Amino acid sequence: MENRTYTADAEPGESVTVAGWVHEIRDLGGIAFLILRDTTGKIQIKFEKDEMDDDLVETGLNVARESVISATGAVEEEPRAPTGVEITPDAVEVVAEADTELPLDPSGKVDAELSTRLDNRTLDLRKEEVQAIFAIRAEIQHAAREQFRELDCTEINTPKIVATGTEGGTELFPITYFGEEAFMNQSPQLFKQLIAGSNVERVFEIGPIFRAEEHNTPRHLNEATSIDFEGAFCDQHEAMDVAEAVVTAAYEAVNENCAEELDALGLAEEFEVPTGEFPRLSYEEAIE
Amino acid sequence: MENRTYTADAEPGESVTVAGWVHEIRDLGGIAFLILRDTTGKIQIKFEKDEMDDDLVETGLNVARESVISATGAVEEEPRAPTGVEITPDAVEVVAEADTELPLDPSGKVDAELSTRLDNRTLDLRKEEVQAIFAIRAEIQHAAREQFRELDCTEINTPKIVATGTEGGTELFPITYFGEEAFMNQSPQLFKQLIAGSNVERVFEIGPIFRAEEHNTPRHLNEATSIDFEGAFCDQHEAMDVAEAVVTAAYEAVNENCAEELDALGLAEEFEVPTGEFPRLSYEEAIE
Repeated sequence: MENRTYTADAEPGESVTVAGWVHEIRDLGGIAFLILRDTTGKIQIKFEKDEMDDDLVETGLNVARESVISATGAVEEEPRAPTGVEITPDAVEVVAEADTELPLDPSGKVDAELSTRLDNRTLDLRKEEVQAIFAIRAEIQHAAREQFRELDCTEINTPKIVATGTEGGTELFPITYFGEEAFMNQSPQLFKQLIAGSNVERVFEIGPIFRAEEHNTPRHLNEATSIDFEGAFCDQHEAMDVAEAVVTAAYEAVNENCAEELDALGLAEEFEVPTGEFPRLSYEEAIE
Repeated sequence: MENRTYTADAEPGESVTVAGWVHEIRDLGGIAFLILRDTTGKIQIKFEKDEMDDDLVETGLNVARESVISATGAVEEEPRAPTGVEITPDAVEVVAEADTELPLDPSGKVDAELSTRLDNRTLDLRKEEVQAIFAIRAEIQHAAREQFRELDCTEINTPKIVATGTEGGTELFPITYFGEEAFMNQSPQLFKQLIAGSNVERVFEIGPIFRAEEHNTPRHLNEATSIDFEGAFCDQHEAMDVAEAVVTAAYEAVNENCAEELDALGLAEEFEVPTGEFPRLSYEEAIE
C-alpha cells in the first residue's frame, strides 16, 4: 500500500493514511472511536457523527471487529487518546470485512479452548501474547546465529529426507520417495559431522527435525526446530563453552530487545539473564 | 583440543600445537615436508631425518594423506615455505589414520565422477571449491536475514508436515503420519500468509521445501532451501523492493567477504554486484 503510515509514526500536524485491523469500536452517542491496530501499535480514529459525512460515519462504525480497513485524515494531539494522538478521518475504506460473530476474542479478554484457537489460528495469532512468542523466537534465532558466527561457525542446511536414522532412541516418519524407502531426518547429526570433519571444522544449523513418537506431553513435539553445533577438534569443555555462549547470547538479546514482549507474556519480572559459568557435571556426578 | 593453534595464527618464535589433515608429504631424501591443512589454511612441517628422533620421523612421514594429525613444535620464519613459516616438530600424534588408497583426490588435481564424489562425501567436501560453496551459501543466508530484519521482517519457522498442498503445480511427498495422510510441505506460503495477516505484517523464512517431481535437470531439486517473504499491505512494487534489496544485499556480502572463495571457484573476475534498479515488467510485457 503506497504512502501508508504505520500508526506509531503518525505525527500531529500531518495528514496520513493508516491501515490495519479494527481492534475496538467505542460508540458514545454523538462521538465514537475506532481503535485501529497495526504491527507497530494502535491509534484512535474519531467520528463526530453530526459533523461528518453520514456514509463515512456508517462505514467506520458499522464494520465488524478484526476487519481490515484503511483511514486517511489529519493527526492531532489528544491527551485522552491511548497514544496521545488521534485521527479525524476524511476517508475510510474497508479492505476486508470480518464476520460479525468472531469464533474467538483476539483481545484476549475472553479465553478460548486450544482446539478453537488452532481452528482459528489467524485470529489467535493476533493476540499480543502469541505475537510476543514469535518476536522472542525470532530474536533468539538471530542472537544464536550471530554468536555462532563470532565463534567461527559456518551455517549449513542439511538434508531432511534421508535413507536411514541418525541415532537410536526415536522413531522416524517414513516417506514414499519415488518407490524407495526414506525417512524424515530426526537430527542433522551425521551431516554436520561429515562437514565438520572436512576442514570446515565448526558448523551450526537451525532447522526442523522430525520424530515420530506419540507423546502425551507438551514438552515433546513431532516436529521441532533444533539448534545444532558441531566442532572438529573440540573436547567436551569447548563444546560446552559454545553452548553456554549461545544460550547466554539468546537471553541477553531477549533482555535487550524484547521488554514489551516479556511484559505481554507476564514474564518481565522473572526474566533473568544467566550470569557466571554454568555448572558442569562429570559423568559420575550426573549419574548420582 | 586444548591449546591448539590454528595454522593461520602460528607466529614465528612461538611453540605451538597445530592439528588438521595431512594435505601432502614431500620427501626430498635427507629432508621432508608435511603440509598440514586446517580450516584457516595450511602450514609446513619440516622433518630433518638425521637430526630428529627416528620414531618422530617415521610417524610423521609414514602417515597416509588426509589422515588427521597434531604436531607440536617451534614456529620459524621460512621464506620458501608456502605461508612463510614452518614448524620443526618435537612431537607428532596421529589422531585418525586415513586409508592409504583414497577413493578420490581431495586436492582436486584428479577429477572424480559425481557418484564417486557422493559416495565419499567426507573427502569430496575437503576440496577448496566445495568448501567455497558452503562458505558463500552461509554468507548469502546471513546477508538475506540481516536485510529482512532491516526491512522490519520477523523470522518464522513454519511446519514442514502438512495436511494438504499449498498450491497447484507440483507433486507432494506423502508421509505416514500416525495412520493419517500427510505431506511434506512444498512452500511456507499459507503459513506465512496466516501470520503476515495477523499483525506481524512482514515475515520471512529460510528453510527447506519439498517437491516430489522427477526432474531431468540439475536446476530442480526434490529438496531445496527457499528464501520466502510475505508482507501485509504490500503491493507488487513493495514486494519487488524487498526482493531486490535482499538479492542485492546477498551479492554485496559475497563481494565483500568471499574474495578467496570466488577465486577458488574461478568466479573472481566475472562476479559483479548488480547496480541500479532491476528491470520490472508488466504482466503484458512478461507474456510478450
